[in-house]
Amino acid sequence: MEVMSTTDGAQADPDEDVATLSPAAARARFAGGRATATSGWCQGYAQANVIALPRELAFDMMVFAQRNPKPCPVLEVIDAGQVRADPGGAVFSAPGSDIRTDLPRYRVYRRGTLAEEVDDARPVWREDLVTFVIGCSFTFEHPLLAAGIPLRHLDAGRNVPMYRTALRCRSAGRLAGPLVVSMRGIPADRVADAVRISSRYPAVHGAPVHVGDPAALGIESWDEPDYGDAPALQPGDVPVFWACGVTPQAMVLESCPEVAITHSPGHMLVTDARDADYLVP
Amino acid sequence: MEVMSTTDGAQADPDEDVATLSPAAARARFAGGRATATSGWCQGYAQANVIALPRELAFDMMVFAQRNPKPCPVLEVIDAGQVRADPGGAVFSAPGSDIRTDLPRYRVYRRGTLAEEVDDARPVWREDLVTFVIGCSFTFEHPLLAAGIPLRHLDAGRNVPMYRTALRCRSAGRLAGPLVVSMRGIPADRVADAVRISSRYPAVHGAPVHVGDPAALGIESWDEPDYGDAPALQPGDVPVFWACGVTPQAMVLESCPEVAITHSPGHMLVTDARDADYLVP
Repeated sequence: MEVMSTTDGAQADPDEDVATLSPAAARARFAGGRATATSGWCQGYAQANVIALPRELAFDMMVFAQRNPKPCPVLEVIDAGQVRADPGGAVFSAPGSDIRTDLPRYRVYRRGTLAEEVDDARPVWREDLVTFVIGCSFTFEHPLLAAGIPLRHLDAGRNVPMYRTALRCRSAGRLAGPLVVSMRGIPADRVADAVRISSRYPAVHGAPVHVGDPAALGIESWDEPDYGDAPALQPGDVPVFWACGVTPQAMVLESCPEVAITHSPGHMLVTDARDADYLVP
Repeated sequence: MEVMSTTDGAQADPDEDVATLSPAAARARFAGGRATATSGWCQGYAQANVIALPRELAFDMMVFAQRNPKPCPVLEVIDAGQVRADPGGAVFSAPGSDIRTDLPRYRVYRRGTLAEEVDDARPVWREDLVTFVIGCSFTFEHPLLAAGIPLRHLDAGRNVPMYRTALRCRSAGRLAGPLVVSMRGIPADRVADAVRISSRYPAVHGAPVHVGDPAALGIESWDEPDYGDAPALQPGDVPVFWACGVTPQAMVLESCPEVAITHSPGHMLVTDARDADYLVP
């Protein structure tokens, strides 16, 4: 299931089974220069979206996340001046962690424009950046697969398609933007199961926000998603939409903070938390 | 089940069934001067803890809540300068709401000391206060009762006992403090059901944090809880401990913000959200 990125810069061992690597070992690979998408890496461990914003916007970001918990479930906050979570948190406790190099690839936004993509964020980091670690739908994809629900994008070796919608997030202070959703085509007779299973993971987007009608979400360019790859539906599939952790990046495009550093879509933070940690009940 | 407060100042209609009042009607009673505990009021609607802190501590409070989601599940944030949530939120949308009068009784802490209790917080309010609305265990008490699990404090007409523990919350910036728990004695053969049912409400404290051993939590004064009333266990009951929304008040005692305004324990905000809104899955 590994989706190899075309931007993989470092020498990769073709025999290495990335599914069984430890999160710390995976992060070491990324810090060493591998710039690959992380789908399929370190199975059983939660992957996460990341956004770092200047301290002066950090409260607004926390309220934005609280008001929009389905797209923006905050798993951890790294204080300004720190490069890793404090040891009390489950998300990443490894002593050698450094949020500026733990991810395989970063996006740097300046005043609402994607300025560059980098593999090492240290040269662009600032002391006043507060980092937000946000849940990712990969966590509920594993139990969907375990229940025998096919995930078409994985079968096709693609990233999941993600769309900006016409739905607005609740705004907070200076931060506003649209809801972004990920879409999975689910066989009609398994839609109820997909809802039931994903709803047990409220901290990683939870139940779908919409089932069945892309037009109702204002999605026009079906074959050209705003993020990720084109959809790969099979006959009889129903499009099911989950709130997506790329929503903060769409918020950045609209709200134009001086700087924002995020993961590159699909190139996630591999955390030390287990998917099962987020299972309710 | 109504626990009448001895501080009830206004004329109450003894025939009024407070269980079937609308939340807006209940808040109007409180704004009009009824200073009663809210257990049993407006059944089916979520009640909530409240803490308002100066804007300069608001980010720290959000991170404190994020790092301690079991005692401090944030349901809503009211911006500084506002007295009600914006209409996008479920918590209280009634146009006439005013967080400074909606509660039956408030506590005012100054530099970590309980300075006074008031029924109307307008004279002590400040423009820079940000208000945090935090989930309350009343929300899962209703489904426990519906499942036939007895709640001894209600049978005895008392408030639930709450204890400061020796467990520390994860700190955030200038905010630190101990975990406060509420205790319910549950018949041994219903403990598993109580865990199972409450765990489906992660936004209102969720599953217990501890089952069975008060000493392991550092609780010494069993018969004299730090908040609420003395326990009323029956033979065969096991003490079960849930994270408690009074935890922010214990944090205030230790962290000594210039000012903090909270609900009085047991005198909650009655919201317009339904208990069922917080049910997962």
